[in-house]
Amino acid sequence: MPKIDGKRLLADLNRIRDFGRYKTGVHRPHLSPQDVESRRWLSDRIREAGLEPVIDGVGSVFGRSSRPGAKLLVGSHSDTQPNGGWLDGVMGVIYGLELARAFNEDAQARALGVIEPVSWADEESAYLSFLGSRSYIGEIVDAEISGARSRDDGTPLTEALERAGFAGRPRIQFEPGRHKAYLEAHIEQGGVLEHEKKRIGVVTTIVGSHQYRIVFEGQQNHAGTTPMRLRRDAGVALTRLCTDIETRFAAIAGPHTVWTTGKIQLTPGVPSIVPGEAEMLFQYRDPDPNILTRFSDALVELVAEASRRGPCRITVERRSRSTPMAMDAAVQDALEAAARRHVKDGWRRMHSGAGHDAQIVAKKLRAGMLFIPSIGGVSHHWSEDTAAEDIVLGAQVLADAAETILRN
Amino acid sequence: MPKIDGKRLLADLNRIRDFGRYKTGVHRPHLSPQDVESRRWLSDRIREAGLEPVIDGVGSVFGRSSRPGAKLLVGSHSDTQPNGGWLDGVMGVIYGLELARAFNEDAQARALGVIEPVSWADEESAYLSFLGSRSYIGEIVDAEISGARSRDDGTPLTEALERAGFAGRPRIQFEPGRHKAYLEAHIEQGGVLEHEKKRIGVVTTIVGSHQYRIVFEGQQNHAGTTPMRLRRDAGVALTRLCTDIETRFAAIAGPHTVWTTGKIQLTPGVPSIVPGEAEMLFQYRDPDPNILTRFSDALVELVAEASRRGPCRITVERRSRSTPMAMDAAVQDALEAAARRHVKDGWRRMHSGAGHDAQIVAKKLRAGMLFIPSIGGVSHHWSEDTAAEDIVLGAQVLADAAETILRN
Repeated sequence: MPKIDGKRLLADLNRIRDFGRYKTGVHRPHLSPQDVESRRWLSDRIREAGLEPVIDGVGSVFGRSSRPGAKLLVGSHSDTQPNGGWLDGVMGVIYGLELARAFNEDAQARALGVIEPVSWADEESAYLSFLGSRSYIGEIVDAEISGARSRDDGTPLTEALERAGFAGRPRIQFEPGRHKAYLEAHIEQGGVLEHEKKRIGVVTTIVGSHQYRIVFEGQQNHAGTTPMRLRRDAGVALTRLCTDIETRFAAIAGPHTVWTTGKIQLTPGVPSIVPGEAEMLFQYRDPDPNILTRFSDALVELVAEASRRGPCRITVERRSRSTPMAMDAAVQDALEAAARRHVKDGWRRMHSGAGHDAQIVAKKLRAGMLFIPSIGGVSHHWSEDTAAEDIVLGAQVLADAAETILRN
Repeated sequence: MPKIDGKRLLADLNRIRDFGRYKTGVHRPHLSPQDVESRRWLSDRIREAGLEPVIDGVGSVFGRSSRPGAKLLVGSHSDTQPNGGWLDGVMGVIYGLELARAFNEDAQARALGVIEPVSWADEESAYLSFLGSRSYIGEIVDAEISGARSRDDGTPLTEALERAGFAGRPRIQFEPGRHKAYLEAHIEQGGVLEHEKKRIGVVTTIVGSHQYRIVFEGQQNHAGTTPMRLRRDAGVALTRLCTDIETRFAAIAGPHTVWTTGKIQLTPGVPSIVPGEAEMLFQYRDPDPNILTRFSDALVELVAEASRRGPCRITVERRSRSTPMAMDAAVQDALEAAARRHVKDGWRRMHSGAGHDAQIVAKKLRAGMLFIPSIGGVSHHWSEDTAAEDIVLGAQVLADAAETILRN
């Protein structure tokens, strides 16, 4: 069995934490100076592990081996949310690096095949969500890259790639037959494992999500001189729809459905003016495509009803839609067997409520995901953390599962 | 009878419109370079009218006469909302100037007394709401001025006064016995006069208003990985309270009550995060103090209920509270008689849903207000406008009423 070096793994995780350190977390959006530096550092570690490092035309980092034989692609993303956590993404990348080393150092494992680590570009959408994995499976075209800009400051992606020295490089694409599977480990980002005292989650499905922008058109007026009966208050229309959504969605939800209004904006947004316009960003997620369809129908119906009722005109615009993606059954079984070996019943199968590069890669390649607990369920925040022994355990379980997959 | 010179009045209104012109409106917040320039221009016109111009320590402009005898104070404010209208405020100031000239030019009127024009500082709250009129009646202390900052860019008020050259000047205060009354004309800022085809409004009462900031404390979480049952979504708590307010307030409202949520903010305000905090700015207005109390009680009760119900903690903070202010009965009668003379039935008594300097000055001095129609009811917007003949008519009605008040 390949043996994870826990000390080396934790040391590398803590070293890469320095690139953009923010309090106990990290600020390392894709192509920020810290991100670019961290990708060069990762390339050096990949070379030390006996692989050829390649940073491609969008900034994804690959460790490539010219050895023939079976290969697995193992990784995640090393970019972070603004002022994000120190594990979200990069833990899975360092697992890939550590697995590559562990397999290389173990004669039996080495004979089975090669682990190729990967760090995808921009999973967190500083420019384009899932940029690296979507580019890899050919889901992104050059025009999309040319048109993309930083959500933060509007810098063109092409300019940022130029500055990083990645512009003009080829984009590495999926090669049929090169890898037997893709494995990704990640912190759970929720509180289920901790709550149930489990140490390993075997992901069954990554949820699908629908994201919408809902716009309310009313009439801007003076808040003192406009009688209630003459108002077309876009804010009132918005809060009423939100309440209707809460009631209707709670009635038709499945056991795993979640829905969220993340942003509300009233225009002009000052105390003494009746809002003439309002806007909300709304999303829901579920592992079951039928439930997603049910929600989609309900939303369209609620908006149409409310718009018809007046006095504001309401329109809904779909911003994005992803379908639920099942993880490969054999990979799930391998992860489960490995987990059972190490923690007996301390594991569970579970869906992922968050999106991951694995849902993209799975369109072309058998894929599986492993979760380890998030302390307090916290993520997308600098205070995100996981116990060191859980981090080491997760890597060993992933290594064992990788061995099984390469063997079969 | 003193005779308004309509051409001169409109020419002056159009001239002062140049200070901060924005599209067909004006951007002239208190103590902006355009505002300071406009106050110097006004001082020159006041001197030409045979009065001594004084700009005081907060920027209010007074026209002072040393002649003994009866005097009226007539004006409004000449600062504007950001990108505001060309009449809101300044029309009443130019009325004051024109009345001063008309009375001075008419021997009989001149014998009755003097019109002293005024332009109050900062009615629109660039630094401190009703700064000029509150300073005049002694409702403001130096410490409040020292601590005030621009709501726009945080500049200290003292620094802006220094830059304008007004710092260190005395603040002109109310002198008992100096004026028989204060008259203020203003555009209606609503659509009632236009809708009823009336040309003059005689203000009975200026509404009282209560303004609140309501804060919701929940728990920030990942919108994909946090099950609905574990959420403490501050945004959901906010929209639910808004709906509860709509229902309860509609049930207990008087015929004139208005209530408005002008601003909503969710924190962090991004699509995939359950808002951990939310905030809304809420206000209501009514001419009847009993109804204001009823609303205040209902709001406190609704918030307490919702906070008790959970899962978010809700607190309400009062930002300001004004009591309804009745206009002087004899001044109302004088305005009505003058209106009747010019337009027969084309006038009505009405309350003011917006706040005005007259509600402040009325605490010390008999006060009255006259409204003229707003086209389409629009104000606090650069497109605000009023027909030229209504502007001239309003000034003549005000002059006639002033004559009556000085005579009695």
